[in-house]
Amino acid sequence: MSSLSPPVNRLITELSRLPGVGQRTAQRLAFHILRLPPEEALPLAEAIREVKEKVGQCEVCFNLAVGPRCRICEDERRDPSLICVVEEPSDILPIERTNEFNGRYHVLGGALSPIDGVDPEDIRIPELLERVAAGGVREVVVATNSTTTGEATALYIAEQMRERSPNVAVTRLASGLPVGADLEYADEITLGRALRARREL
Amino acid sequence: MSSLSPPVNRLITELSRLPGVGQRTAQRLAFHILRLPPEEALPLAEAIREVKEKVGQCEVCFNLAVGPRCRICEDERRDPSLICVVEEPSDILPIERTNEFNGRYHVLGGALSPIDGVDPEDIRIPELLERVAAGGVREVVVATNSTTTGEATALYIAEQMRERSPNVAVTRLASGLPVGADLEYADEITLGRALRARREL
Repeated sequence: MSSLSPPVNRLITELSRLPGVGQRTAQRLAFHILRLPPEEALPLAEAIREVKEKVGQCEVCFNLAVGPRCRICEDERRDPSLICVVEEPSDILPIERTNEFNGRYHVLGGALSPIDGVDPEDIRIPELLERVAAGGVREVVVATNSTTTGEATALYIAEQMRERSPNVAVTRLASGLPVGADLEYADEITLGRALRARREL
Repeated sequence: MSSLSPPVNRLITELSRLPGVGQRTAQRLAFHILRLPPEEALPLAEAIREVKEKVGQCEVCFNLAVGPRCRICEDERRDPSLICVVEEPSDILPIERTNEFNGRYHVLGGALSPIDGVDPEDIRIPELLERVAAGGVREVVVATNSTTTGEATALYIAEQMRERSPNVAVTRLASGLPVGADLEYADEITLGRALRARREL
């Protein structure tokens, strides 16, 4: 690509580091940015700088936060006795969209994975146990992913909670058929769980 | 999305302005950038700023250039008597990849489209005619896209050239390019063949 100047090549390289962005897409995005007037291109650069400068972690729940606490922990209307445990800050968004949850969160920052060397203390499980032990919590909803590592993390948390805070309920998101899904295309494991968890109509 | 802080929302908004990036993809990219350490995220912001600050237009061919001339116009080994006319700077890249072209370029900055109000003087056709009339050019290869507007542009250029510089050959990339396709996405082999088999207009 000797026909491109170094600044253009640098932009393509940086764009291609983004997830799901290959060389061709990075080129397409770069030429788009090159075509934009500066007042339309620079706000993206500024937005990247701004999040890196201003966005840190909530000191209570480890969600993204501008300042010491995230918007959810700062919201007095959110029930502090109900804590939803998620793997990543991005997992909070889909839960918020349901409008079904009015508690607070706890972001683990990953899931247990002994083969990858991810132990309980690497993913803020001690912080969760401490937070619950401090009192005022009646239920912990474990909303880790429904993957092997997410399930293992949920089981480990349930075990630890039973030991240290036996009066706090630990629940897990129900597994079952996605709404609108065809039975014909459901995998055996999902369908098996949906059957075991069947409820009276 | 009230659970996200304004800087995060701004980043998602700016990312979603990129072509082919919807709301969900913008969110995914934003959370990726949020997870990166500053030293990995800031180079992207810097690369965007840098292209906007440093990259302008070549005064000869209107390709992207750092300084007055692009790297191709500055390269003494490139044949100045052979000019390839393209719509956009991004069209130069796939032609360079074929290694079949050793001439210079002329970037129109679009294609003729009377219904959209794009006339010859809006897309640097006068600059092309002047450049050719100044002498030293033996052939102009018109490599506009093989779309309606690209074809119309090619025919118009051929007509004007016959009138003003009748001794300069005007050629067109051979068909072999799928009709309706954008040059930017053509593979090297097809494009290389199309170049070798270019025909007189």
